[in-house]
Amino acid sequence: MENPAITRFSGVAEGEWCIVQSQAICGDGLAQAPCLAMTGAATAPAADAVWSLTGVSSNIRYTTATERSRLTSAQAPLGRPEARLAALIPIRKNAAWWELAQDERRQIFEERSRHIRIGMDYLPAIARKLHHCRDTGGPFDFLTWFEFAPEAESDFNKMVDRLRVTEEWRYVEREVDIRLKQLNSRDATL
Amino acid sequence: MENPAITRFSGVAEGEWCIVQSQAICGDGLAQAPCLAMTGAATAPAADAVWSLTGVSSNIRYTTATERSRLTSAQAPLGRPEARLAALIPIRKNAAWWELAQDERRQIFEERSRHIRIGMDYLPAIARKLHHCRDTGGPFDFLTWFEFAPEAESDFNKMVDRLRVTEEWRYVEREVDIRLKQLNSRDATL
Repeated sequence: MENPAITRFSGVAEGEWCIVQSQAICGDGLAQAPCLAMTGAATAPAADAVWSLTGVSSNIRYTTATERSRLTSAQAPLGRPEARLAALIPIRKNAAWWELAQDERRQIFEERSRHIRIGMDYLPAIARKLHHCRDTGGPFDFLTWFEFAPEAESDFNKMVDRLRVTEEWRYVEREVDIRLKQLNSRDATL
Repeated sequence: MENPAITRFSGVAEGEWCIVQSQAICGDGLAQAPCLAMTGAATAPAADAVWSLTGVSSNIRYTTATERSRLTSAQAPLGRPEARLAALIPIRKNAAWWELAQDERRQIFEERSRHIRIGMDYLPAIARKLHHCRDTGGPFDFLTWFEFAPEAESDFNKMVDRLRVTEEWRYVEREVDIRLKQLNSRDATL
């Protein structure tokens, strides 16, 4: 029985998203591949996959009801036709982060680093979905998927730059930044 | 590569813990088995296993630093020789619980239901370890393992009775209460 909450991301030879750049921000990068495929977990990675990561959509861990209400009213869904660019950012935090109590992590995450507040500044232009993978045993703790129109690319860069200088990011021990461009049917026939 | 944080619990014909009683508190129970085996995830369940559940030891989700400090100073470890009784309580919470924001779940869990506070009343007699399984796709969200001496059994019963009447427990949609007795080497040779 396939768990519909699980998504598999693979670096493959052919797929709907073309990998424009894959950069190690911190720690080891991922092997270079021309394309990214996004499937359910029951689909085995293609034989030519050079990497494969799965994550599960789960309950929120830090966001309050008030913050969620603000996010929900401002955010755009995935799959907008104009959102032809995407980014997949796998992250692993260090043991010191995971040893912190819930209130200590929340303090760093939002009260001191303004993670949610920074993200809010880029809504609705940047659509986002978080996939968890710490408890499922992969090499990362989170896989965050972002979609945006080409006009929002410089804003996306500003957002990740702002996040990467926060106190929260001192706990990040591995981060890969994969940028993608959608290969739609019109492009494919050119 | 085996993840050492994963534990597999199986209902089997022979194992170190004898199942004294297995009772459905809410929702479906688990098939009856004479014994319980506790192994790493890389060990396949025995061929005669009638059920098998895995959980992962993970970061704390609601406990504050102050609460953790109180718990740590009061609690006893697993594996005490006098702790010849145990309980495994698999629980699943409903969708309404998981839809709540983090602060709403915390409010119900501790400020209104006193989950941590109630548990504290039974330290150090009742030792406890929580295994998570919501994100790994099993039929439960948590598997909690408790160990205690026979003298603490009535206190253990009081503790679970107090928890089961809380607001938090209104969100529990499946709960099985499995009681166990350790089969030590002395018993085994009788």
